[in-house]
Amino acid sequence: MVKRYLKLISLEEARHLLTTSFPPPAMTEKVPVTQSLGRVVAVPVYAKYSVPEVNISAMDGIAVRSRDTIGATDRKPVTLEHLSRVNTGNIVPPEFDAVVMIEDTWEVGDRFQIRKSAAPWQHVRPAGEDIREGRLVLPRGHEIRAFDIGALATYGVTSIDARAADVGIIPTGTELVPLGVRPGPGQVVESNTIMAQVFLSAMGSRCTRYPIVPDDPDLIAESLERAVRENDMVIISAGSSAGTRDFTEGVIRSLGELIFHGVAVKPGKPVMLGKIDNKPVLGLPGFPLAAQSMLREFAAPLLESWGLAPPHRHTVKVRLAQAVTSDLGFDEFVPVFVGRIRETCWGTPHARGAGVQMATVKANAYVHVPPLAEGFEAGEEIDVFLTTDPGSIDRTLILSGTLDPALEELANLVHDRGLFIHASTTGNIGALMALKRRSCHAASLSLPALPVMSECRFLMQHLPATGLVLIHIADVEQGIVSQDGITIEDLPKVRWINTRKDTSMRMVFDSLLSERGIEPATINGYHHEVSGPQAVAAAVRNGFADAGMSSSGIARACGLRFVPVAHEHLELAFHHDMLTDPRIATLLPRVNSPEFRHILGKIGGYGTGETGKIRLLGADRTIIDLRPDGIAQ
Amino acid sequence: MVKRYLKLISLEEARHLLTTSFPPPAMTEKVPVTQSLGRVVAVPVYAKYSVPEVNISAMDGIAVRSRDTIGATDRKPVTLEHLSRVNTGNIVPPEFDAVVMIEDTWEVGDRFQIRKSAAPWQHVRPAGEDIREGRLVLPRGHEIRAFDIGALATYGVTSIDARAADVGIIPTGTELVPLGVRPGPGQVVESNTIMAQVFLSAMGSRCTRYPIVPDDPDLIAESLERAVRENDMVIISAGSSAGTRDFTEGVIRSLGELIFHGVAVKPGKPVMLGKIDNKPVLGLPGFPLAAQSMLREFAAPLLESWGLAPPHRHTVKVRLAQAVTSDLGFDEFVPVFVGRIRETCWGTPHARGAGVQMATVKANAYVHVPPLAEGFEAGEEIDVFLTTDPGSIDRTLILSGTLDPALEELANLVHDRGLFIHASTTGNIGALMALKRRSCHAASLSLPALPVMSECRFLMQHLPATGLVLIHIADVEQGIVSQDGITIEDLPKVRWINTRKDTSMRMVFDSLLSERGIEPATINGYHHEVSGPQAVAAAVRNGFADAGMSSSGIARACGLRFVPVAHEHLELAFHHDMLTDPRIATLLPRVNSPEFRHILGKIGGYGTGETGKIRLLGADRTIIDLRPDGIAQ
Repeated sequence: MVKRYLKLISLEEARHLLTTSFPPPAMTEKVPVTQSLGRVVAVPVYAKYSVPEVNISAMDGIAVRSRDTIGATDRKPVTLEHLSRVNTGNIVPPEFDAVVMIEDTWEVGDRFQIRKSAAPWQHVRPAGEDIREGRLVLPRGHEIRAFDIGALATYGVTSIDARAADVGIIPTGTELVPLGVRPGPGQVVESNTIMAQVFLSAMGSRCTRYPIVPDDPDLIAESLERAVRENDMVIISAGSSAGTRDFTEGVIRSLGELIFHGVAVKPGKPVMLGKIDNKPVLGLPGFPLAAQSMLREFAAPLLESWGLAPPHRHTVKVRLAQAVTSDLGFDEFVPVFVGRIRETCWGTPHARGAGVQMATVKANAYVHVPPLAEGFEAGEEIDVFLTTDPGSIDRTLILSGTLDPALEELANLVHDRGLFIHASTTGNIGALMALKRRSCHAASLSLPALPVMSECRFLMQHLPATGLVLIHIADVEQGIVSQDGITIEDLPKVRWINTRKDTSMRMVFDSLLSERGIEPATINGYHHEVSGPQAVAAAVRNGFADAGMSSSGIARACGLRFVPVAHEHLELAFHHDMLTDPRIATLLPRVNSPEFRHILGKIGGYGTGETGKIRLLGADRTIIDLRPDGIAQ
Repeated sequence: MVKRYLKLISLEEARHLLTTSFPPPAMTEKVPVTQSLGRVVAVPVYAKYSVPEVNISAMDGIAVRSRDTIGATDRKPVTLEHLSRVNTGNIVPPEFDAVVMIEDTWEVGDRFQIRKSAAPWQHVRPAGEDIREGRLVLPRGHEIRAFDIGALATYGVTSIDARAADVGIIPTGTELVPLGVRPGPGQVVESNTIMAQVFLSAMGSRCTRYPIVPDDPDLIAESLERAVRENDMVIISAGSSAGTRDFTEGVIRSLGELIFHGVAVKPGKPVMLGKIDNKPVLGLPGFPLAAQSMLREFAAPLLESWGLAPPHRHTVKVRLAQAVTSDLGFDEFVPVFVGRIRETCWGTPHARGAGVQMATVKANAYVHVPPLAEGFEAGEEIDVFLTTDPGSIDRTLILSGTLDPALEELANLVHDRGLFIHASTTGNIGALMALKRRSCHAASLSLPALPVMSECRFLMQHLPATGLVLIHIADVEQGIVSQDGITIEDLPKVRWINTRKDTSMRMVFDSLLSERGIEPATINGYHHEVSGPQAVAAAVRNGFADAGMSSSGIARACGLRFVPVAHEHLELAFHHDMLTDPRIATLLPRVNSPEFRHILGKIGGYGTGETGKIRLLGADRTIIDLRPDGIAQ
């Protein structure tokens, strides 16, 4: 047995230690006002002069003495002796106290007549109306926005003193290669410190990335000493190898003090904090998602406690489409995808390994599960933190079901129309369930090529008494994928990998076996089930199995050989009332476009004869063909 | 009468014309991935290789063949012949299909023993687990976030093709001076194009600001032709003078086509749109707030229709503390300050002139009043758009009442403790009303220096049956402000300016008149009422009146002479239950600090003998002195 962590402390305790052990460095940076967006004011900004500096006219017109205008009416116009023609922004001479709009004056020879009295100060912008000389424009701590910069310039402010902090970031790990170098087997591109630099610079810190340090305690110590000397805070980013993890703690202890190592948080448990020369040294775990949450939950709060601009945190209330599970005693952060179906925001958790960065890329939010919760139930309403513009939620179509490469191409097509497609792999049954509870806009179904009525029966079994629209995407070739061209005859000799019972691939495979009188029990791996054809191809490619059922498109994408067996229909299904949804309305003409058929043709393996065909499956099990715009023919 | 706009079109119609008349320019910009934050993907990004590229270990341990481990238990350990020692991230050699954690192994000589069988694939990260070679990482249209950049680097992506557009911005107006030059009377710093550049660059456009063009149609035409040639879109920013406004329309007509001039929107009515060489030319009004809303409502949507990143729009539901009025038929945008009192978000509109940039600086949100609404009632619940981090709302203390310079200093002091103070001038009665309906955290009251019980009675009259805490800020000198040292004896000869009846200044002035037997009617300007002592000083300074009542601090800030007459108590009042509010808890020790008294002493004109003294006015009209931490003594 090996020692891992002496003792895990809670996230709350760790953050308390972090934000109370290090007083803010007394650093400011003079920033030209034109480059101050997002920076935080360190020294209060005062107006250099009044704006306007003298009384000016707010309108085009004539400056008058209000007392001269008393009694003017349509029937008794007043002709003015004392006046001055002014335009908007012109000085109102001191002897005048009001402006009459040019529309309300009549020129009579070289004089002006008015037919309404003018109230004192009317249409005059008094000196200092906007701000007076010496008055506070921006207090300390204010985060500068684009429109603040306009005001600052108006008030004569050319630069501001912004809060600043120098952050040194050290990547460690012998397995790391720098960005731009193609990693060999077992190597990875050093990307965590790039991410840290981008993330922390946006808060207004100045980040320096040091060269990659291999797994050598002396070299780590040398780099760390230098970084501590040159910065207010140091982040030491661990590689995933055992070496760096173990060395960092020792090096921190040798140069200063270790405050903690190991926090009850997921991902991010191996995070550590040290103090060297009274400066914080944060040890970042190597798994990318762990590094992300530690940047967000530790590095950012520390810089925020120093007065830098925190990342904006917008929450949105969602209903969970799937349960989120979490370990009791741990603070857990899970990427979530948020989409809106009619009035409800649905959140779909993307809980996968801490090494799967695509989970965060595809997500637009994350959820925090506190230590005393074991997770959240499906259907529960919870708050999640958004990581994108909330407007993008309404521009996103949520798809659930089979992920075929044809759908990725469709997604690319509709992006040009401002529509995003977010797809999650759930299989046919999962997709129909999502459709039933309306946690997706549309289900992508792969249906075995069986007579129409049984297709209908299959759907009706799961979605009784509802009008469902089916749009045909393509016919997809199904067959056996392998490294070496395995056919149905080879079955008894190979390691097989199967898909779940509700998939079209499985239905076809099972009927193939029964046709040929092959006993499933004789097939090595028949009970090894993965989610779908993508996972089958991955397993075969990675050598975990010799063969399985997949599609020709997926086989090509994975560089596998393909022996065709049958074909399936790839269909999008959605509730009839969604025909009026703007996202569906944008989607339909793209599916039914020559462009889309052309793309599928180029990829190969797709039958596009019926692509774009729309049918309505009525609640009474009747099938009606619809026109491309969704109207009954 | 003069012609202004031929015809106003609606904001909706104008925006439709804008976003449908100009197809997106076919522009992309190659951006290093490290500088791609906030940019929008123009060409989909695919992974250059699989991650991981081969099967790797997810743990420190030993790689095994799962079939060798079948049957291992505590009582029947299995000693393995075939294995490979691996650490996290190491390659799992092809002959192995599982990893056993090092904690679950026992070294026996040079071999390893296990006591539990290993499932196939256990603790193995299969090749392509994160992403497979050639698969889509980011679709077209994706806005890049900090953590996406980490993933891109991991997948070997060094640069991306981002959407881009060149925007030329021309400032016009003879009255303009560039930033860095002190404007003379009637001149203003050219700041609208700086604001436009900062705002539109944040969307990913490349903005070029051209030199200021004076009011000369030939020079404007020359600059416009050049800008159209060099950019995809041109913004021509009008000065406030009549000249530029009138010339711009003519110049656009002479070089191309005028699509509209004048939109039913406030502020921003004079906005115009032209088309020259098929490129959009947007004429921006000169008033800063008009320019702001037109940048947000026209320029940004145009760039968004071209695929650039829209400014993020976060809404929050607020209850209006005051009514918002608006003209029927106009879309209107009003700056709003949002603060939270217990569970309720309150929105206070800052409706002032389109030239008052401080209104947007002080606001953290804005409200959109649609054309068919005449505004919103006080107390109504509406959605507003935030312009700051929502987190800042909970760090803000809302003050209502008198705005004395002492409070500005206090605000500066508490900023260092992470607390913002937002104050609005409402007078004593307005402040007490706000306190009563809990739309502010605390009321800043200026109370005439009368015996304690009458002070209490005054408050109780407005807030019956509640426990109110009063914290003494300072004694403030009250007196007559003027340019030339006017005293009470001069009253009959001067133009006076008064404050509202509920102000302490007015109470003192009225009692002064009655003491001296002076008839109010004999005072020129007695019925001219402004909101408070700040407004009085401004009016006197601007020559609209000769004298009025104000405080010595304000007089000094305005450079006015001051003749003392009496003094008042500046007090903060809040509900007793707010003592536990973290904002109030942060505030109290600052008021009661030697530092604060020192600052007030330096300013002068303040009595600080009782500064920080806390009293509780019970519902039964009793007064209890509290300790500085709010506990009864």
